[in-house]
Amino acid sequence: MEYVFSNRISALQPSLIREILKNSSGSNVIPFSAGNPSPESFPVEDMKKITSEIFDTASSEALQYGISEGYTPLRDTLKDRMKNKFGCGKDFDELIVVSGGQQGIELACKVLCNEGDTVICENPSFIGATNAFRSYNVNLCGIELENDGINIEKLEQALKTEKNVKLLYLIPTFQNPMGITTSLEKRKAIYELAKKYQVLIIEDNPYGDLRFEGEEVPVIKSMDTEGLVIYCGSFSKILSAGIRVGYVLAPNEVIQKMVVAKQVSDVHTNLFFQMVAHRFMTQYNMEAHIEKIRTLYLRKSGLMLSCLDKAFGGKVDFTRPKGGLFLWGTLPDRVNMLDYCKNTAAQKVAVVPGVAFCISPSDKCNSFRLNFSTPSDAQIEQGTDILGKVFDAM
Amino acid sequence: MEYVFSNRISALQPSLIREILKNSSGSNVIPFSAGNPSPESFPVEDMKKITSEIFDTASSEALQYGISEGYTPLRDTLKDRMKNKFGCGKDFDELIVVSGGQQGIELACKVLCNEGDTVICENPSFIGATNAFRSYNVNLCGIELENDGINIEKLEQALKTEKNVKLLYLIPTFQNPMGITTSLEKRKAIYELAKKYQVLIIEDNPYGDLRFEGEEVPVIKSMDTEGLVIYCGSFSKILSAGIRVGYVLAPNEVIQKMVVAKQVSDVHTNLFFQMVAHRFMTQYNMEAHIEKIRTLYLRKSGLMLSCLDKAFGGKVDFTRPKGGLFLWGTLPDRVNMLDYCKNTAAQKVAVVPGVAFCISPSDKCNSFRLNFSTPSDAQIEQGTDILGKVFDAM
Repeated sequence: MEYVFSNRISALQPSLIREILKNSSGSNVIPFSAGNPSPESFPVEDMKKITSEIFDTASSEALQYGISEGYTPLRDTLKDRMKNKFGCGKDFDELIVVSGGQQGIELACKVLCNEGDTVICENPSFIGATNAFRSYNVNLCGIELENDGINIEKLEQALKTEKNVKLLYLIPTFQNPMGITTSLEKRKAIYELAKKYQVLIIEDNPYGDLRFEGEEVPVIKSMDTEGLVIYCGSFSKILSAGIRVGYVLAPNEVIQKMVVAKQVSDVHTNLFFQMVAHRFMTQYNMEAHIEKIRTLYLRKSGLMLSCLDKAFGGKVDFTRPKGGLFLWGTLPDRVNMLDYCKNTAAQKVAVVPGVAFCISPSDKCNSFRLNFSTPSDAQIEQGTDILGKVFDAM
Repeated sequence: MEYVFSNRISALQPSLIREILKNSSGSNVIPFSAGNPSPESFPVEDMKKITSEIFDTASSEALQYGISEGYTPLRDTLKDRMKNKFGCGKDFDELIVVSGGQQGIELACKVLCNEGDTVICENPSFIGATNAFRSYNVNLCGIELENDGINIEKLEQALKTEKNVKLLYLIPTFQNPMGITTSLEKRKAIYELAKKYQVLIIEDNPYGDLRFEGEEVPVIKSMDTEGLVIYCGSFSKILSAGIRVGYVLAPNEVIQKMVVAKQVSDVHTNLFFQMVAHRFMTQYNMEAHIEKIRTLYLRKSGLMLSCLDKAFGGKVDFTRPKGGLFLWGTLPDRVNMLDYCKNTAAQKVAVVPGVAFCISPSDKCNSFRLNFSTPSDAQIEQGTDILGKVFDAM
């Protein structure tokens, strides 16, 4: 049999990051390439207790089919938290539980974009999202990401000239891969542009709870008086990534279509862990747990940065994010990035070449992404030392 | 903001069954409309023990990101079971873990069908699957389902005349909604037609383990010498529906594309419950547990059928399936089906009108679906009595 695949999927390649992840999962590889939360960030004892309680008191519900919208008490609790903590959620908004933030992005694209429509995003951007867009044959338009967020002039230019722009995809807080946080001024400007050009924003915020330094910047969704923002949140970095539980807060009209799309995608998200998340939020102290993760990542990012300063002696620039999971290093032009990444891999240190996150394969990028949440402290010390030595030898 | 949705989703209505399910979830409604496994079919004590073990010994792995293909030990165990128990799986085949059988169907369509391509299916068929196809704007062609399976002549006619036929979607064993099992002869004929016309078959088999009477009929996948069959299996009816764990056994070329599509859909299936399923299969006695479920459903279907015989006195025909979850009743022409379903709903007995499963809204269907796994014995006795009385009054 000669298999003929759909046009949409033929163009799509497996995620370079996940391929690297798969190939660098050996225990002797130092995993600066991953995007995994630290295992220390999982509240294992609490989750074990909650799980046991659910088996004792609510197993029939937890193991049975649920509704596609998600577990109602969890949805209500999330809506309350979004309102009270982030000032998000108007009367026109609704919330759906999804199987990780990734699914929120994919469903939003499925219900809003026809093939050939345009999605504008930061360049570089999260490859899981850009590949989700590609899997619906949309036209991706990447806009340069500056130190305080996307270039506003180029964004407006694209909104003016690109055909059928349906979505603007952004990670305004501790962006993946660069670690950059969009300034309040730019957030306001972006929202005004979305209003002017009547384009919906996907605000992807998986790292928003992970600020370990500086002042909170209001999320774009909190400015959403017109129903323009589809906000994607996640439990992956504050409870567990493996359970695949996230949520989308968006105008109800959009949510209703996403519910229909979710029905045909996976019926509903794992109900057992929706109930675990709900109990963790309401009967345990999730906010205190998040504080512990922030403290952990403050320490780990600080360790990595001080080790990098030592290893590179200032010869390479690194972003200094105030939260999230990632640093972004940029090599001087004389050093070829792909060669550098190959050489570090040969020394058993995995980093992701920046080009993996670029919108077009022809985009130039001499940077690489480092993750500080996955490796142990010893791996950070040893791995950064190797990174510096590989650099010095080139 | 005036929202404009994609063409593919604008045509798609929420599943009538799930809407009925939602509206009939009150505790005073007798739920013959559901497709839920009996809560007695969940091995709660075993799952509780396994869960506790995982928290004690493997929590870092279970709560962390996994690979899109699925948990390797579970995949290996499933491949072994498919080979040893069902004679399925050639060298060219591979297996992916998905978030319920539903996701297997949706991903197969996404990677194989362009908009406008044709999917042929039984008529009536499972609305979750037909809506998944519709959500990719394919042309659905329903072929009459007879007592021993799809009409073979009409199937060949459709294969000859329909444009760009990419998939043949079938539930050969204990079909939803009719409860019919396709005969061995027809299975062979279907496979030969797929070979002749080079069309892939999706063999959806969520109920295959639930035979409580008669001889097993080999699955079509066991005849697959050419790499034509995409087999979808599920833990929903033998372990838990709420955990959303299923699997697809198919030619590796197809599986590799599905892995890419799964990456962008939900990254991977809930890893914790993949590990629960694996341990249940290998360290506990899943086959003995399935035997218990079969015994339970033999009793419950027998109870429902004898109650229906009493309530209707033979004036309505019901299918007498040898497994699965559903019966299919056909009213005499003089009684209008939708009126009947509305009248039973008014008496707090929810059944699904057959037209909900028809491929075209203009298809005639004077039947309704009954589920015997969800209601309690007392509900079966009380509900069938009401069904008979509502019928007598019409």
